[in-house]
Amino acid sequence: MNILEKINSPADLRILAQDNLPVLAQQIRKFIIEKVSQTGGHLAPSLGAVELTLALHYCYNTPEDKIVWDVGHQAYTHKIITGRRERFSTIRQHGGLSGFPRISESEYDNFSVGHASTSISAALGLATGRDLLKQKSAVVAVIGDGSMSGGLALEGLNNMGSSATAMTVVLNDNEMSISKNVGALSKYLTRVITDKRYNRLKNSVWDLLGDRSSVGKGLREMIRTVDTTLKHILIPGKLFEDMGLRYIGPIDGHDLGEMIKIFKFLKEESTGPVLVHVVTKKGKGYPFAEANATKFHGVSKFSPETGDLIKGGSNSLSYSGVFGKTMVELGKTNKNLVAITAAMPDGTGLNEFRDTFPERFFDVGIAEGHAVTFAAGLALKGLRPVVAIYSSFLQRAYDQIMQDVALDNTNVIFCIDRAGLVGDDGPTHHGNFDISYLCTVPGAVVMAPRDEKELRDMMFTAVEYSGGPVFIRYPRGFGPGSTCDADFEKIEIGVPQTIKNGSHIALISLGDMYGDVCGVRELLADQGIEATLVDARFAKPLNTAFYEQIFSNHSIVAAFENNTVAGGFGSAVLSFSAQLDHRPKFLSFGLPDRFVSHGDNSKIKAELGLTPQAMAEKIITVLKAESLELKTNM
Amino acid sequence: MNILEKINSPADLRILAQDNLPVLAQQIRKFIIEKVSQTGGHLAPSLGAVELTLALHYCYNTPEDKIVWDVGHQAYTHKIITGRRERFSTIRQHGGLSGFPRISESEYDNFSVGHASTSISAALGLATGRDLLKQKSAVVAVIGDGSMSGGLALEGLNNMGSSATAMTVVLNDNEMSISKNVGALSKYLTRVITDKRYNRLKNSVWDLLGDRSSVGKGLREMIRTVDTTLKHILIPGKLFEDMGLRYIGPIDGHDLGEMIKIFKFLKEESTGPVLVHVVTKKGKGYPFAEANATKFHGVSKFSPETGDLIKGGSNSLSYSGVFGKTMVELGKTNKNLVAITAAMPDGTGLNEFRDTFPERFFDVGIAEGHAVTFAAGLALKGLRPVVAIYSSFLQRAYDQIMQDVALDNTNVIFCIDRAGLVGDDGPTHHGNFDISYLCTVPGAVVMAPRDEKELRDMMFTAVEYSGGPVFIRYPRGFGPGSTCDADFEKIEIGVPQTIKNGSHIALISLGDMYGDVCGVRELLADQGIEATLVDARFAKPLNTAFYEQIFSNHSIVAAFENNTVAGGFGSAVLSFSAQLDHRPKFLSFGLPDRFVSHGDNSKIKAELGLTPQAMAEKIITVLKAESLELKTNM
Repeated sequence: MNILEKINSPADLRILAQDNLPVLAQQIRKFIIEKVSQTGGHLAPSLGAVELTLALHYCYNTPEDKIVWDVGHQAYTHKIITGRRERFSTIRQHGGLSGFPRISESEYDNFSVGHASTSISAALGLATGRDLLKQKSAVVAVIGDGSMSGGLALEGLNNMGSSATAMTVVLNDNEMSISKNVGALSKYLTRVITDKRYNRLKNSVWDLLGDRSSVGKGLREMIRTVDTTLKHILIPGKLFEDMGLRYIGPIDGHDLGEMIKIFKFLKEESTGPVLVHVVTKKGKGYPFAEANATKFHGVSKFSPETGDLIKGGSNSLSYSGVFGKTMVELGKTNKNLVAITAAMPDGTGLNEFRDTFPERFFDVGIAEGHAVTFAAGLALKGLRPVVAIYSSFLQRAYDQIMQDVALDNTNVIFCIDRAGLVGDDGPTHHGNFDISYLCTVPGAVVMAPRDEKELRDMMFTAVEYSGGPVFIRYPRGFGPGSTCDADFEKIEIGVPQTIKNGSHIALISLGDMYGDVCGVRELLADQGIEATLVDARFAKPLNTAFYEQIFSNHSIVAAFENNTVAGGFGSAVLSFSAQLDHRPKFLSFGLPDRFVSHGDNSKIKAELGLTPQAMAEKIITVLKAESLELKTNM
Repeated sequence: MNILEKINSPADLRILAQDNLPVLAQQIRKFIIEKVSQTGGHLAPSLGAVELTLALHYCYNTPEDKIVWDVGHQAYTHKIITGRRERFSTIRQHGGLSGFPRISESEYDNFSVGHASTSISAALGLATGRDLLKQKSAVVAVIGDGSMSGGLALEGLNNMGSSATAMTVVLNDNEMSISKNVGALSKYLTRVITDKRYNRLKNSVWDLLGDRSSVGKGLREMIRTVDTTLKHILIPGKLFEDMGLRYIGPIDGHDLGEMIKIFKFLKEESTGPVLVHVVTKKGKGYPFAEANATKFHGVSKFSPETGDLIKGGSNSLSYSGVFGKTMVELGKTNKNLVAITAAMPDGTGLNEFRDTFPERFFDVGIAEGHAVTFAAGLALKGLRPVVAIYSSFLQRAYDQIMQDVALDNTNVIFCIDRAGLVGDDGPTHHGNFDISYLCTVPGAVVMAPRDEKELRDMMFTAVEYSGGPVFIRYPRGFGPGSTCDADFEKIEIGVPQTIKNGSHIALISLGDMYGDVCGVRELLADQGIEATLVDARFAKPLNTAFYEQIFSNHSIVAAFENNTVAGGFGSAVLSFSAQLDHRPKFLSFGLPDRFVSHGDNSKIKAELGLTPQAMAEKIITVLKAESLELKTNM
């Protein structure tokens, strides 16, 4: 019997007999594996949370009761049973379902997520709002143990623990975020789970507590005393109790019966802040994912039978791969080079550096702010730290970049992966703001390579430079495949490279727009227009002499960037040009000043008018409109 | 005998007999009160930390051993005994000492601070760097309990607890940051301090431990067992032990003998991460400050004898006062209006709102990120949250603004005090980046009022608006004194106000630059130039029709903002104008693209060429250079 086919909303789930749920869980697992093998997606986290999700929706009256997912990697079951089963095969595709909970997608999605550690704060807001409006409903945040290392989650916990608001945090503990977790809290949770003394005793205490409603006041008091005493002696989750939360756990997150007992009890009886510690296995039920949860955290298409990933055509290194390889090379000659990542050793490509120089590698967990301030401390001791964080996640550390690094012009190097459009992960993961927010940082050097070789040369240049913070941003995925074996070449800070000399029009390309800008130039050449082509290399600083010449010698200047046009590279070049006498027509091509949806990058670019064809057409239109001026100037 | 006069460095301190230190502490207190009464400054925190600072420098071999101060409000004694006594009367004045530790000021200042919660991460970086370089030295972070609520500090603690690095965090617990502390951790610390059972026992344990070096291995083991057992039963600081830190405390932070005993022990014997919990009294030794530590946290000049603040000339309300008064008015008619601050109820002016609507007021402690995400949750429940955070501190929440508010166009209102130059507090507190980083936020409405009345109208407009996040930024201190009693007027989103019509030149003023821009206009009028004067009101969005007309009708357009020119308002206006046919000469007046030092705002403005005189001269120079073009166009 296919139960899943009949579940079109959590209401359908709630009318099932409880002993149907394990069967449903297996059907959901099979469904997820089948679909994600065809689309790619966040497999292992979602497989680990199947029973937890069913137990929550089974006990709580969603959507009136609010479930807030942290990050959302684990929310596929949630999507499938909240009316999105039939559209599930469109997940992460252009025009299809988002890979993450999105308010705009469903009334069951109570907070749009993608960045870690937001759920407790958001849920506390929802719960406090409910109290102020004198409404009744439960609020539950579901957060992985990896996200708990983020400062925002810890701030949320600190505020939740001192509030009297009824809400529940479910700590989904699978001992890893994307990679193996780090930090004292993570170690603490492991100790709690493995404390066998308490595990033996807690069951009997909980059996008593489960019956609490049916006993008299005196006995209830006694039970409370016993419970408190046990906890004080055996200390499971005492840390959370010290933070003002009632702690319940550890609970087997694949035992539907145990979870349902507890959630039903909490929904009916709980009046304050509670933390339920649930232990799950990432990748649960799919042996390949259980065995290698990091590989199966977020996957491309794969064969469900063999667990083999279906590779794309390229055998070359991705930008992350080039970064990782170059770090190892630079680390060999520079003994002071250290690498810092925030829970992304694999994603950033730092795993080889970690394995080669373990003592010079630091994974600080999901804690971008700490990563940056910690790096500043290392740099002040004379080490040469490289902080590798994805573009959109680095937003978390904007203040630390300003105050802890830039204020003293401290030599920290930032290698910023996933800059610009990232495709399937969408607006929470597109790195479309970094050029803009980094250009506000006084004294910063902000670079973007046009290909793999330039990335390597920029990294080499950054390590040789000692004038303050350096930021190198590069896109997700593969570059054009330029050589990674050439000797390093030092790049002069601020100086662009002129690739082709032309007249009338100057095309200034920053970073990975280069390929498309070459396409624009060819299309213009087809119309008999020979454009000057510049690889800008730097968004900051801008070389005065160079740009003065460009602006003097051309009647149209166009800038190109894989970044928002709001406060971006084009805007900086234009602002610089305002001081010049000659003011040619200026065009700025980049991402629009709005959040950009998910899907294939090529489809997004087409939609945004950022194909070579569309950009060339726009330039030609302007050229025609300006033709009078062009003629008089030349 | 004046001991203080002989202390020109910590080396002079370390040769003193220990029983001279209490006398020295009293002399330092007297010195601080005397000096700060003349200059203003952070009095109460520094008075509370006199003995702690002496004990640290007495025991540790500074500057080889590193002390990292968090925020730096408490670091005056540190400055005085590290060779800056004679310059101390210049503190916070233009060209004088900074009010905060600054690396550039002294070899004893190991990290430049001003924003909260950085010290643990920075010290962990210094300590880890020391280990990698195989150096020997102690690293000590000193952090207030208020700063401990910040996510960055909690991230630091989480990483410190899982590292094996020898370093000490001194938690200076005075139960308040600037106002009374909030949060579960703060409550926990209070419980620890007041647990009398443990306090009685800990002394005997510590007496034993103090002699540990002189006893044999067996006895040491026994002591450790007793110590551990006691802690498990009585649980003082068990939370920190659970986080992987050795906990020592609570200690009387005015008892030099006790602190010296412990710091000497730690310097000699400690090999891992330790937290020393020191309890101090803010304002200690100055009765007026002890009685009202919030008032004396940061003070203007005052009479040392009476404790009365010496007020400036103005009897009107500051911008903060106008904001606070308006919040109460708006709160009366709008029952869904709620206010959120991050440890700044007094500074932001929200105290009256707190007292009038206690259930609608939320002080989340130093936790800007949480404040924003929490507000998003409240807004999603249909409440109308106003987040009041100083401009430079809001940088901590850049990502939360983007992802948790703007992504879903959630109706959160931000009232951003201390925007632009703030004077004495200098580069850590100047709010010179907010226009730039907020203009990168898709869909944001970013406003700046020219006076008090406009602030009120903008707040009214924001509450009436439901199209997404609204940001209102206004400066520290007093405005021109416009009426605060007029009826509210709604402002059309994006539309500037033309104040005067002129020709040739358009002066576009944003926010509090208005007074100076009026001055510029008068100076131009003296030269026979009638400039158009515009109050821009909005940095985002820009009204297409309005600016198109301005650019069409003028040959020179000048924009003015109390914000960095990098990616600021001028840059946005210029970028907008690029699409227009007419391209007049454009001038952008604002703060330079570098960190700006501390001191009187008028002196800073003079230095930066931002006086009406200097700006008018620059415009006239450009006017003369462009005169040929002007004539041909008109």
